[in-house]
Amino acid sequence: MRVLGIDPGTVRMGVGIVEMSGNKYKLVHYDVLKLSSSEPLCSRLGKIFTFTKQKISEYKVDVVSIEDIFTAVNPRSALKLGQGRGAAITAAVEMGVEVFEYSPREIKKSVSCYGAAGKEQVSHMVGVLVGVKDIKSFDATDAIAVSICHLNTIPLRNMVCRA
Amino acid sequence: MRVLGIDPGTVRMGVGIVEMSGNKYKLVHYDVLKLSSSEPLCSRLGKIFTFTKQKISEYKVDVVSIEDIFTAVNPRSALKLGQGRGAAITAAVEMGVEVFEYSPREIKKSVSCYGAAGKEQVSHMVGVLVGVKDIKSFDATDAIAVSICHLNTIPLRNMVCRA
Repeated sequence: MRVLGIDPGTVRMGVGIVEMSGNKYKLVHYDVLKLSSSEPLCSRLGKIFTFTKQKISEYKVDVVSIEDIFTAVNPRSALKLGQGRGAAITAAVEMGVEVFEYSPREIKKSVSCYGAAGKEQVSHMVGVLVGVKDIKSFDATDAIAVSICHLNTIPLRNMVCRA
Repeated sequence: MRVLGIDPGTVRMGVGIVEMSGNKYKLVHYDVLKLSSSEPLCSRLGKIFTFTKQKISEYKVDVVSIEDIFTAVNPRSALKLGQGRGAAITAAVEMGVEVFEYSPREIKKSVSCYGAAGKEQVSHMVGVLVGVKDIKSFDATDAIAVSICHLNTIPLRNMVCRA
């Protein structure tokens, strides 16, 4: 199972593709879409949509895992974030790929055993887990953590299905 | 110029297509997409995307006009609204149609000369302006008002372009 993890945003959006290889995480690809805040929103949403579709298609992604944002500084920020998430999720739905959502707390816990871990801690643990230590962008390591979070739920999901 | 006005939402989304016929507004079509709040978000966003694309294609829409939401009760509501807007805007971008955004105040002013008009007042004035008085849904009349708001800006836009 190949998972595309997304750390959504309308200025920087991180993606990380991870799969299981035996009992190890294998990092297939990561990237950060960088957009300008001065670029019209519609154009940015179009780019998020196309970027997500391309990654799903190019890397034969089975599932999309995306961070769910419950907290935001203010409604205006939440609206912007929501639009970015909307464009990315729509791309996955359009490609016929199932989408799973996880809270920041679940994601942090899945890589660091600590739901309030900082970005540096998440980044360090992601590097250790995938065996790649030179990933410099927090947007990318956050996205990889979102993929790992979904991969961790699969054994439990399978047990539930069997039961 | 045929304008598709959108009153965005993730449970009910209104659309209204209006064009100018001489110096009168001509209502081409209106509809309301009704979704269940118990339906998974991804499925709803997919339906918003497909519904918007279908309307643009079927009615040969030139431009999309969408309500911009600046205020929301809380960040959680803003996030949901943002996702719905994101899916609708992405559909327009995907179809190569330009998108214009207007604040609720601009929209209300464009049909009632009063930026704080209530839904009944907007609905009544929309009925008068398009000459159709039995449009029962506020989601539809709000969406038609969004179209009219864009049509009203065209003479000014043309003057600016000529200057």
